Amino acid sequence: MSFGESHGRCVGIVVDGCPAGMPLNESDIQGQLDLRKPGQSVITTQRKEEDKVEILSGVFNGFTTGAPICMLIWNKDSDSLPYEMIKNIPRPGHADYPAIVKYGGFADYRGSGRFSGRLTATLVMAGAVAQKLLKQTLGIETVAYTTEIGGIRAGNITSANIPSRYTNEVRCPDSEAAQKMKDAILQARKEGDSLGGVIECVSTGLPVGLGEPIFASLESDLSKALFSVPALKAVEFGSGFAGSKRRGSENNDLYYLKGGKVMTKTNNSGGILGGLSNGMPLVVRAAFKPAASIAKTQETLDISKNSQANLAVPGRHDPCVVPRAPPVVECVVSMVLADHAIRAGMIPPVLK
Amino acid sequence: MSFGESHGRCVGIVVDGCPAGMPLNESDIQGQLDLRKPGQSVITTQRKEEDKVEILSGVFNGFTTGAPICMLIWNKDSDSLPYEMIKNIPRPGHADYPAIVKYGGFADYRGSGRFSGRLTATLVMAGAVAQKLLKQTLGIETVAYTTEIGGIRAGNITSANIPSRYTNEVRCPDSEAAQKMKDAILQARKEGDSLGGVIECVSTGLPVGLGEPIFASLESDLSKALFSVPALKAVEFGSGFAGSKRRGSENNDLYYLKGGKVMTKTNNSGGILGGLSNGMPLVVRAAFKPAASIAKTQETLDISKNSQANLAVPGRHDPCVVPRAPPVVECVVSMVLADHAIRAGMIPPVLK
Amino acid sequence: MSFGESHGRCVGIVVDGCPAGMPLNESDIQGQLDLRKPGQSVITTQRKEEDKVEILSGVFNGFTTGAPICMLIWNKDSDSLPYEMIKNIPRPGHADYPAIVKYGGFADYRGSGRFSGRLTATLVMAGAVAQKLLKQTLGIETVAYTTEIGGIRAGNITSANIPSRYTNEVRCPDSEAAQKMKDAILQARKEGDSLGGVIECVSTGLPVGLGEPIFASLESDLSKALFSVPALKAVEFGSGFAGSKRRGSENNDLYYLKGGKVMTKTNNSGGILGGLSNGMPLVVRAAFKPAASIAKTQETLDISKNSQANLAVPGRHDPCVVPRAPPVVECVVSMVLADHAIRAGMIPPVLK
Amino acid sequence: MSFGESHGRCVGIVVDGCPAGMPLNESDIQGQLDLRKPGQSVITTQRKEEDKVEILSGVFNGFTTGAPICMLIWNKDSDSLPYEMIKNIPRPGHADYPAIVKYGGFADYRGSGRFSGRLTATLVMAGAVAQKLLKQTLGIETVAYTTEIGGIRAGNITSANIPSRYTNEVRCPDSEAAQKMKDAILQARKEGDSLGGVIECVSTGLPVGLGEPIFASLESDLSKALFSVPALKAVEFGSGFAGSKRRGSENNDLYYLKGGKVMTKTNNSGGILGGLSNGMPLVVRAAFKPAASIAKTQETLDISKNSQANLAVPGRHDPCVVPRAPPVVECVVSMVLADHAIRAGMIPPVLK
Repeated sequence: MSFGESHGRCVGIVVDGCPAGMPLNESDIQGQLDLRKPGQSVITTQRKEEDKVEILSGVFNGFTTGAPICMLIWNKDSDSLPYEMIKNIPRPGHADYPAIVKYGGFADYRGSGRFSGRLTATLVMAGAVAQKLLKQTLGIETVAYTTEIGGIRAGNITSANIPSRYTNEVRCPDSEAAQKMKDAILQARKEGDSLGGVIECVSTGLPVGLGEPIFASLESDLSKALFSVPALKAVEFGSGFAGSKRRGSENNDLYYLKGGKVMTKTNNSGGILGGLSNGMPLVVRAAFKPAASIAKTQETLDISKNSQANLAVPGRHDPCVVPRAPPVVECVVSMVLADHAIRAGMIPPVLK
Repeated sequence: MSFGESHGRCVGIVVDGCPAGMPLNESDIQGQLDLRKPGQSVITTQRKEEDKVEILSGVFNGFTTGAPICMLIWNKDSDSLPYEMIKNIPRPGHADYPAIVKYGGFADYRGSGRFSGRLTATLVMAGAVAQKLLKQTLGIETVAYTTEIGGIRAGNITSANIPSRYTNEVRCPDSEAAQKMKDAILQARKEGDSLGGVIECVSTGLPVGLGEPIFASLESDLSKALFSVPALKAVEFGSGFAGSKRRGSENNDLYYLKGGKVMTKTNNSGGILGGLSNGMPLVVRAAFKPAASIAKTQETLDISKNSQANLAVPGRHDPCVVPRAPPVVECVVSMVLADHAIRAGMIPPVLK
Repeated sequence: MSFGESHGRCVGIVVDGCPAGMPLNESDIQGQLDLRKPGQSVITTQRKEEDKVEILSGVFNGFTTGAPICMLIWNKDSDSLPYEMIKNIPRPGHADYPAIVKYGGFADYRGSGRFSGRLTATLVMAGAVAQKLLKQTLGIETVAYTTEIGGIRAGNITSANIPSRYTNEVRCPDSEAAQKMKDAILQARKEGDSLGGVIECVSTGLPVGLGEPIFASLESDLSKALFSVPALKAVEFGSGFAGSKRRGSENNDLYYLKGGKVMTKTNNSGGILGGLSNGMPLVVRAAFKPAASIAKTQETLDISKNSQANLAVPGRHDPCVVPRAPPVVECVVSMVLADHAIRAGMIPPVLK
Repeated sequence: MSFGESHGRCVGIVVDGCPAGMPLNESDIQGQLDLRKPGQSVITTQRKEEDKVEILSGVFNGFTTGAPICMLIWNKDSDSLPYEMIKNIPRPGHADYPAIVKYGGFADYRGSGRFSGRLTATLVMAGAVAQKLLKQTLGIETVAYTTEIGGIRAGNITSANIPSRYTNEVRCPDSEAAQKMKDAILQARKEGDSLGGVIECVSTGLPVGLGEPIFASLESDLSKALFSVPALKAVEFGSGFAGSKRRGSENNDLYYLKGGKVMTKTNNSGGILGGLSNGMPLVVRAAFKPAASIAKTQETLDISKNSQANLAVPGRHDPCVVPRAPPVVECVVSMVLADHAIRAGMIPPVLK
């Protein structure tokens, strides 16, 4: 249950169901928040937010208590002036227009309000708790990284270079591609434009059988959570769209035993069969559209006058949201996995 | 809430929340079920099921009562013998292995049990009710059709040829591509293999503002429901993956007025912005993997002996599930839209 | 998720979340259903229903599979004629009037439709599964019995005479009071009238800590489920209303150790403190109003004419529903306890 | 979704689903909070809390936005020392013992933590919003007052004296009884003891047909919410336990027309039939046990030593929680009614 708006007092989230007895403090969460926060490099928005998390409840003497954990960050560097100017002029590609209709003009439009990418900070807070829980109890680790920006694809991604993904500004393990992606972002910004891209996320250490058939399949719940991230427009598991072009004999993953453990030779399923984890790494990719707020002039409407208008979106914006997305995707995926693991009784209600 | 197994007594579903006063009888549902049912053409499984729906509750004197609607179809032509032979030999690409682990060997493995594509009949039953409700109350119509099979893409899809999609066996509006797709399926089957493909689904007539930001975004709930369909491995809205390669100035949909109505010149958003419908057609595409059950011999394990085994999957199977998927996708999308419309108070609890 | 109507085709329920591997067949459920079914004695309605349960899904080879269990009973001896006569004349004390308004006249009014006491059969089916599960896994046993009918209170109820509760028609362990209660019911019926009463329910063997603080307290969930039973108008735990007249020093239950186990000397809390089970027997009482359908003439309205009308309710009715309520209350309480135990990870997803 | 602990940083709640466009500011909530807050009179705990509500989200320019409303109050005057002393000595009648077991000693025990009556402040915050919404949109008003304390019953409660209920410290409309109740509380406290009592709550202006049959009956949801209030041990609607002693001909409420409106001559149903509102005033009563924390010495255990112990509960406590309960009950009932009204489409998503 998240709350807050981009330019309101704060953004926060309440996490219910976390077991008691897990060591937790603000620094466990701050790391992921810092990776997401704005103003960090030349390729992100210049809004400067400390994004310092405060835990308001659910932790006592350094351990979770089993009670709901409320976490929030206070908004500080918000500049709402540009939004006052355009409150009747919906930005193409943004939620402005349907939000005006849906909420009858009462929604907080400043900084996109509830529809802002800033709300992903709440997902990060919740997910960072989940990530710690999963690692500590089941040994599950989740990593996300950029594989494509503006059509430039990373070539060489291996378990060897994935740990280095945060050493460059676009968070791509392939450092050569990373440089090209950065250049492309800078070029797009120079032209008053923006880029999109693709994030890949891999979780290892999953037990077999996580997920429920049909309505609560692992793919169902992961995609539902992922599509809560603004600008995310596609999700695929394993071989995804590419797999749909193959034959069954190519796409099926063949079983074998490795040290007594059941494995598959390939992982086209992305670790999920019939909505259940099969013990192989979970692989999901998400496509982000190019950021909608651009400096280039675009045609739109002035709703208050019911007439055509031109708009060059003012304010500070990311020319590409993809570089800030890996911690968000990691955290969202971790949230869902933790929820399933708890419901399946795989994580006890009290950790010792 | 669906129930039933592929080779159990029946498959069924209970639909709660349908308004009172809608005319409903079995024939409203049977049409969609007939489009999904097996044994209809040379390119589908030869299992012959009547798939005749029975409404057990929630309808009185030809109208919905507002009470839960239980619908089911009895299973008739099930042949479980092949499954007895392979109950310890998980088929590559199927849920067999994680299901054995998850349910400790107690799951009904006959015909894939709860993980069978046959369960999509329950989604069709529920969705057919939703489809009728949406058309009658809000004028929303949803159509799905095949756009790709085995890598063969439909070229020319227009509002003119979409209505003809059920006149060919692969349910593709482009009749030329349809013939190639059919040939490819027959060829694959001849080789003991299978194909995958892509379904596109378009809903028109949506009011503006359907959906909730973040956790219950329209994309979240649609993808969650879609990923409950077996063999579905990817979902994209609007320009999806392709859009992630574009610039903002190309991908943003520009607003204009048409007869006083707010429209966009393009529809790269697929009719959804910030998780809310924007009044343009909702466009979603789903990729299906090639059917996992193939006659070709594959390497797998015998779980009971903890040893390697070879398997040529016995029984009757679809060489490609895509041709049977359009009614399923239409119904799943309709279910989600109806649910959102009811929760938003856009459909009254009693129809007059 | 229950479905069905009193005079529709059937009444049924789908139970989700039951662990795999529990032996289950129809006879496990039929016992409780037989104790609830009508037409059994001179003091109940003369409607004759076999109430024979059929399990449609979720059980395979005699064991639960972990999939949803759909159970139903077909309606046979329904006589809808009387209801046709009074469909515009709401019976005092029944749901008729608000149901007509709520569902705009579309609800199935025959036999009270969805509001009939017959729907408690669905609670019994679900609860019988829960009861078996709780006994087998945690050793929890739940018994309910009549403590009061028409103001006549049972005097002497002990663990010695509780097992005999089903040996008399009013299901009261105090056989002397039982005879008086039966006489009172017969007398009321002779006068065209009806009686109410009180059921007490005791669960033993509960682990400590079942329940969640605040919104999902054990009392919250138990009362929510109990108030789904028609004619039930009050619920109290432990000393309940009587306890509210006492002082803290009288009502607090003092702790002591018995063989190393924490016990309380009294049980005024009814086994629940702060919404959590404390290991003592759970004690809850529910008050049932006198049956609303009586032969005596009552003043009411003819809704179709908007005028006053007199009504002597036709058809076959229970002069007192209390004697048929103990199996219902046992089952409802068991459902809630099983749900909490499963969610708390106290019952594994697969039973060995 | 509430969060916080008695002696943590704050207690708060997030309210989702409130329509956009309702004027709301802190003063709308503060009034009810002030009526609940401690330290107001000689008969309540001397803990002094300002209980000043802060709205953190969901309100913009003085109106609700349709986004989640997060409200909280910071804890100030907490004195945790007494709780350190007794952290291994469970207080009779409190949640201490089951909480220690459930949370493995990790729960925040200070001031009863999550189980404290202080958490009812969160219910008041949420309920005050609901109360305003119901009044403004549907004209529903809800009042609660004390009818009994320590066995002393109010005699004369009428619509004329109910508005005066907050003019005395026990919140009883019968001022004579109120004086006796106050004396009884003072006497109990002098003796180191405590009292319980009964609150009655009446809602007027309800539309007909609020509530759903069976699992979401109005009685189900009201009782579920009411039992989330600490120390509340019984709930009855309308004639409740008393009605169960009557005959049907006495307890049934007869219909008549008054100015074209359907009314009943009596209101033994408490305004609810078959789980649905019938348009008459909703009447519910709740019994509170005597406060568990008393100065008198009681027998209990020292869990850390596994031995018997004596305990005179230290700290500041209410000798009777009933006088502070009316605003809580009003707010809880309002929450449930608002939720049902919104789900039934009776309150639009945007208020004009």
